[in-house]
Formats: sequence, structure tokens, C-alpha cells
Amino acid sequence: MGRKLLSEGLGTLLLLTIVVGSGIMGERLSGGNSAIALLANTLATACGLYVLINLLGPISGAHFNPLVSMMAWQDRSIDGSTLLALITAQLGGGLLGVGLAHLMFELPLMQWGIHTRTGMAQWLAEAVATAGLILTIRLFSEQRPTQVAAGVACYIAAAYWFTASTSFANPVVTIARSFTATFSGIYPADVPGFVAAQIFGAFTGYWLAKQLKAEALSS
Amino acid sequence: MGRKLLSEGLGTLLLLTIVVGSGIMGERLSGGNSAIALLANTLATACGLYVLINLLGPISGAHFNPLVSMMAWQDRSIDGSTLLALITAQLGGGLLGVGLAHLMFELPLMQWGIHTRTGMAQWLAEAVATAGLILTIRLFSEQRPTQVAAGVACYIAAAYWFTASTSFANPVVTIARSFTATFSGIYPADVPGFVAAQIFGAFTGYWLAKQLKAEALSS
Amino acid sequence: MGRKLLSEGLGTLLLLTIVVGSGIMGERLSGGNSAIALLANTLATACGLYVLINLLGPISGAHFNPLVSMMAWQDRSIDGSTLLALITAQLGGGLLGVGLAHLMFELPLMQWGIHTRTGMAQWLAEAVATAGLILTIRLFSEQRPTQVAAGVACYIAAAYWFTASTSFANPVVTIARSFTATFSGIYPADVPGFVAAQIFGAFTGYWLAKQLKAEALSS
Amino acid sequence: MGRKLLSEGLGTLLLLTIVVGSGIMGERLSGGNSAIALLANTLATACGLYVLINLLGPISGAHFNPLVSMMAWQDRSIDGSTLLALITAQLGGGLLGVGLAHLMFELPLMQWGIHTRTGMAQWLAEAVATAGLILTIRLFSEQRPTQVAAGVACYIAAAYWFTASTSFANPVVTIARSFTATFSGIYPADVPGFVAAQIFGAFTGYWLAKQLKAEALSS
Repeated sequence: MGRKLLSEGLGTLLLLTIVVGSGIMGERLSGGNSAIALLANTLATACGLYVLINLLGPISGAHFNPLVSMMAWQDRSIDGSTLLALITAQLGGGLLGVGLAHLMFELPLMQWGIHTRTGMAQWLAEAVATAGLILTIRLFSEQRPTQVAAGVACYIAAAYWFTASTSFANPVVTIARSFTATFSGIYPADVPGFVAAQIFGAFTGYWLAKQLKAEALSS
Repeated sequence: MGRKLLSEGLGTLLLLTIVVGSGIMGERLSGGNSAIALLANTLATACGLYVLINLLGPISGAHFNPLVSMMAWQDRSIDGSTLLALITAQLGGGLLGVGLAHLMFELPLMQWGIHTRTGMAQWLAEAVATAGLILTIRLFSEQRPTQVAAGVACYIAAAYWFTASTSFANPVVTIARSFTATFSGIYPADVPGFVAAQIFGAFTGYWLAKQLKAEALSS
Repeated sequence: MGRKLLSEGLGTLLLLTIVVGSGIMGERLSGGNSAIALLANTLATACGLYVLINLLGPISGAHFNPLVSMMAWQDRSIDGSTLLALITAQLGGGLLGVGLAHLMFELPLMQWGIHTRTGMAQWLAEAVATAGLILTIRLFSEQRPTQVAAGVACYIAAAYWFTASTSFANPVVTIARSFTATFSGIYPADVPGFVAAQIFGAFTGYWLAKQLKAEALSS
Repeated sequence: MGRKLLSEGLGTLLLLTIVVGSGIMGERLSGGNSAIALLANTLATACGLYVLINLLGPISGAHFNPLVSMMAWQDRSIDGSTLLALITAQLGGGLLGVGLAHLMFELPLMQWGIHTRTGMAQWLAEAVATAGLILTIRLFSEQRPTQVAAGVACYIAAAYWFTASTSFANPVVTIARSFTATFSGIYPADVPGFVAAQIFGAFTGYWLAKQLKAEALSS
């Protein structure tokens, strides 16, 4: 149990350090061209996810995302108290990860996010992003178990660009990113809308995966 | 059967959302530098294809392309009525995918494409793009069955740049992209020329794959 | 035999179409920023090589390079007359590939190259590039036979940037690229120096691979 | 033994040629946009590492890094005199690699580095970078032995962007990079701070890997 919590905490910490840190670096070096900054942010996040999921998947499942942990609980892979402990570890790790990125780039440990991300279009984007993520995780786990890390990394790389919200797709990541005023941040008041959309998207993805694998419909 | 149609419809929907959505994002962020926008579009499309083919290949073959479905029909893997149903699902999915991308980026659900793409050089490019795609699919399926997704993703990444048309290589994708006035769009009157060239290219690719695998010529 | 020649001819044709075509596209779209053009050129070439080597490796070995064919002859995998036929197919394919790229981009079928690439530093770069390529091919073939395509693709992606010559590393590719006045071209009078350096580099790579695998030196 | 030293020397030589050479090329072509230069530098380094580790891993373990060799010694995979010989080969190779990159780009064989990289934030970044590298190497080696090369390549690609120091994570690479005044260089007086931070990070990574694999804590 302790080992799993360490794994989820450390993994979410590093994920946030990667997302926030590469966003700062991209913004600083790109001379105001946001596309180049987002390309760098995409590259770092996708490569980082590939590494983290392969590193920590065998130890704790490499959720780094309460929605993924909740699916594991729904599937009865973990019980309710483990679920709570995992989410706590993810949240703690995520906040520490933002702080670590800030320290490396000589910024205050915590800031309030300033990027407004709200409205129907953004919420739709988050729902789509999360549905796709859950679909990817569930079908890869079943059909391509050795390629889950590559699958999730590639999915997020695509979703950074095809969704209008740059695909947060993760409530803990969303909360943690509300504590940075840099490239990857989000205005704190916009967090609840994102999280609601992500939960809706997760259900959609879960339902779609079920339809696609349903024996009854199979030809 | 229903499961296969859902898979082809959903897959083509997501493919178009990825292509059109990442084109819009790339165009908006890149400050007018089309090369950077196309790099982002390439990255998202290739990563998205890798995910979609791995996700939906085991369910419906992951054609997302009527020319690929027609080859399956030619090989007697599917019958004529399945072929028709698959193409209908692809077309419906493709149109919905464009609409979904537009909704996420706060654009009208459907627009007429405005990018002129016509003339002998463009048609040659589409024929080459499609011949290469069919060759890739057929030889990977036979020789590297576990790497089809990576093969198609890499092929399209290269073809976005080496063909003058940025490689549509798919009649349903071409039709769907005539309903967006954004980066990845095509002027509706230019669709028939593209589709004709793609059909010609598909036959060429099919024929080339046959020559390369012909026992009679084998040393 | 005919099948092998078709494979080497077609493969070299497509390789040149990819290299020259993506160079033209990159140059046209990047607004004068050569680094962005070379990034696109790198992406297309590496992805294209991954596809072509997986497609045609099982059929003809996917040499696309007379230096690689000569090593196969040296290893007695092929005889002298096959070697000559393969090189002829590669050269013919390479020239056709440049012409095809030009046609797609509405340029004259053949042009003289105008990019001066000469001098000790460039020759050293080509020798290093070719030595590394041969080392990569030989050691991957022995130690990682299923990853040769990924290995060569990654090697060339790196070598486009770390060698001052952008790594031609292939006499047929060099000759063919002297027939284009676009991004990837070379001034015809500079071809012999490149080819000589490549031959020297190939011997160096061959020798290094031998040292690294020598039983006598093994601990 | 000789074969192992050749492998570590040659590998570190090529690694430095790749890092320094692609830095020079990126800087020259990118017209002052450091983000584009660093993207190119990242691409070349990651692809190069993938190739080098696959090439030389079966021969010498592909350390290219005294901290990795020291872990092998700590694990009793190698003895003390081999450790010393390997580090000497790495250092010699690294310096030659910088010289080779300079020769290819027509620069003086050796220069003093001029990029100031110092202060708590930079040291923290190097400690984080090295801890992550060691964690990656140890857990991939145990859990995903066939993907170590891909894992390290992806880790470094991410770390070039998420750490404020662009992730040297290697004392020999740090020393060698103090002999170039180009993009990837470091001011010589800043080397000791980097190396100390790397050593601290290596211990942290080693310790973290142990905690994550500890049986006693396992659920």
C-alpha cells in the first residue's frame, strides 16, 4: 500500500513538473510564438508520460488521475479506502510538482492561475478530451496491454492540439494547474467547470468502451 | 455488425476532429507561419492515427476510408452490403467529426471549404499519396501485422510533407474537409478531382503490392 | 530477382520523393526559417524511412544505398551481377524520385543543384554520417533485427542535425540530389567529394563494427 | 575488456558530437529563436540516444555516464579497476566528441564554454534531472528491459524542457560541454556545482528506485 501511494504521489508530482516546467521553458524561449511553446510542451508531456507509465505502471497502475482510479474502484480492482488514499496522494503530488517546477524556474512556490478557460466550447473540449483518454486507456489495456504507455502518450500529444482546451482531462492536474500563473495555468474559478466536464467525459468514454466491446452487438 | 459500424463511425469522427481541430489550433497559435501549423497538424494526426488504429483495429479493422473498405470487399473479407454500411458510417462519422471540431473552436457547425486544391500537380500528389497509403497498409498487414498502426501513422506524417497536396488520400476525409473553411479545408468543387486521383492511386498501390509479393517474380 | 530490383528501385524512388518533396514543402511554408524547414524535412525523412524499410526489407533488404549493397556483396549475401543490377535500380529509382517530387510541386522535371557543399569540414561530416549509418545498420541487424527500421530512421533524424552536411550518407542519394535546385539539392561539382567521403566513412563504420563484435577482444 | 572500453569511449564520443553538433546546427539555422534550436537539439539527442543505447548496450551496457557506471560498480556488476577504466574512456570520448563536432562545423578544436549556468535553481534542476534519469534506467532495466533505449531517449527529451538547466544529468557530459562556446556549452567555473548536484540527484534516484521496489512496503 505504502509503495503504491509513493508511486502515485511521485508520478503525479513528476507529471505536473513536466507539464508546468516545459510550459515555462517553451514560453520563455519561443519569443511569443505560442505554437512553438505548445509544440515543446506537447513533446515533453508525451515523452514524460511514456516514461512515467512504464516506470510506475507495474507498481501502482500509473493512474495519476482520480477518474482513472475511480474506474479501478468501479471495476473492484481497488476498494474505497484505497481509492481515497490514492486520490490524496495524487493531489499532494500534483501540488508539490507545480511547486518543484516553480522552484527550478525561480518563481514563487505557488501562484494563482490567470489563464481564463471557460464557456461551453471549452467544456465540450474537456469532455471530448477525457472521453478519448478513458477510451484509450480501457481499450489499450484490454487489446494492447504492452503498449498502454505509448497509447496514452500519443493520445495526449494529439489532444493537446485537437481539443480547444489543450486537454487537461484530469481533475487533479486541473486543480494543480490553477496554482501557476504560467503557460499551462488555469484561473481558479474556472476549475469547477473543467472538472464537471471531465467527469461527464469520463462517463461517456466508459460507456463507449463498453459498447465497443459488448458481446451482444458483436457480429 | 452494429459494433463494427459504431467503430468505423466513431473512428472516422475522431479522425476528422483530430485533423480539423489540430489544423485550427495550429493556424491560430502559429502567427501565420504555415510550416509550424502543419508541423502541429502532422504531429496530432500521426499520433491520433496510431491510437485510433490500435483502439479500433481489433473491432472493425480501423479502415476509416472507403478505399480500404473496398479492398477488404475485393479480398472477400466483407460482403457488398457490409461495404455499403461501413462507407455510410464513415461518411456520417466524418461529417460529425468536422462539426465537433467546429463546436470546440466556436465556429459554425458547417462551413464551405475555401482552400483551392486543384490541377494536375495536386492530382498527381493525391494519386501518389493514396498509392503509398495502400502499399503501406497491405505490406504491413502481411509482413508486420503488429506494427500497422505505427506504419500508417508514420506514412501519413511523411506524406503530409512530401506530397504537394498534404495527402488527403481518403475520399470520405476529402468530402468531410470540404465542410470547413479552416486550415485543413478544401473548396467543394475540387473534391471530385481529388477523389478520382485517390481512386487511381489506390489501384496503383494495390497493383504494386501485388507485384512486390508475386511468387512468380520472386528470386 | 525482378521482384528485388522493383523493390530497390521503388524504394529509392520513394525515398528521394520524400527527401526532396518535404524539403520543397518545408522551404515554401517556413517563411525563410531554415531550422523549421529542416525540422519538417527530418520528420518526413525519418518517418518515411521507417515505413520503407519495414515495407521493402523483407523483399530486397531495403538497401536503397550502393554502399549497403556493397557490404551485402562483401558478406557474400549477393553476387557481383546482382550488386550491379541493384545499384542500377537504385540510381534509376533515385532519379525518377526527384522527377516525381518536381512534378508534384510544379517544377521542371530535372534541375541542376545549386547548393554548394564542399570543403574539408563537409567531407568530414559525410564520412562521420556514413560511418554512423553503417555502424547502425550492422549492429542493429545483428543485435536488434526487429528494430532496424526504427534504428535507421532515428539515426538519420539525429544525423540531419549533428553533421554539418545534413547527412547524405549515400552516393545514389547524393547524385540524385544534384538534379534539384531546391532545399535538399547539391551543386553537381560537389558530388565527387561527397561520394569519396562516404566511401571512406563506410569503410570506417564497417571496421568499427568489426572491432566492437570481435571475439578476440571480448572480455 | 578492450571491446567494452572502445564501446564506452565511442558511445560517449558520438553522444557529445550529437549534443554539441545539433546545438550548433540548431543555433545557426533558427535565426535566433532558441525554442526552435532546442527542439532540434532535443530531437537529435533523443534519436541519437535511442540508437547508441541499442547499438552499444549489448556490448558495454551503454553507460556513457560515470554515475551509471558507479551504480554498476555498487551493484557489483563491475569491479573498481573496470570502473576507473570506463570513466577514463567516457571522459576521453566525450572530449573527442566535442572536438569532432567543432571540426565538422569549422570551429576551433576546443573552446571555453561561455554559458553561465549556476545558482540554486539550476542546481536543483540538475539534481531533479539526474534523479529522474537514474530512476528511469533502474526501473526500465528491471521492468521493461527491451525498452531501456526508448525510455532513456524519451526521458531526456522531456528533461531538456522540464528542467530549467536543460538536463545535463551526467558529469562527463558536463565537463565535455565546458569545452564549447556554442549553444550547448557551460562556463567551466559552473561545472563543479553541476556535478555536485548530479551526484546528489543520482543518490536520490537510486534511493527512490529502492523504495519503489522494496518488498517490505509492497501491498
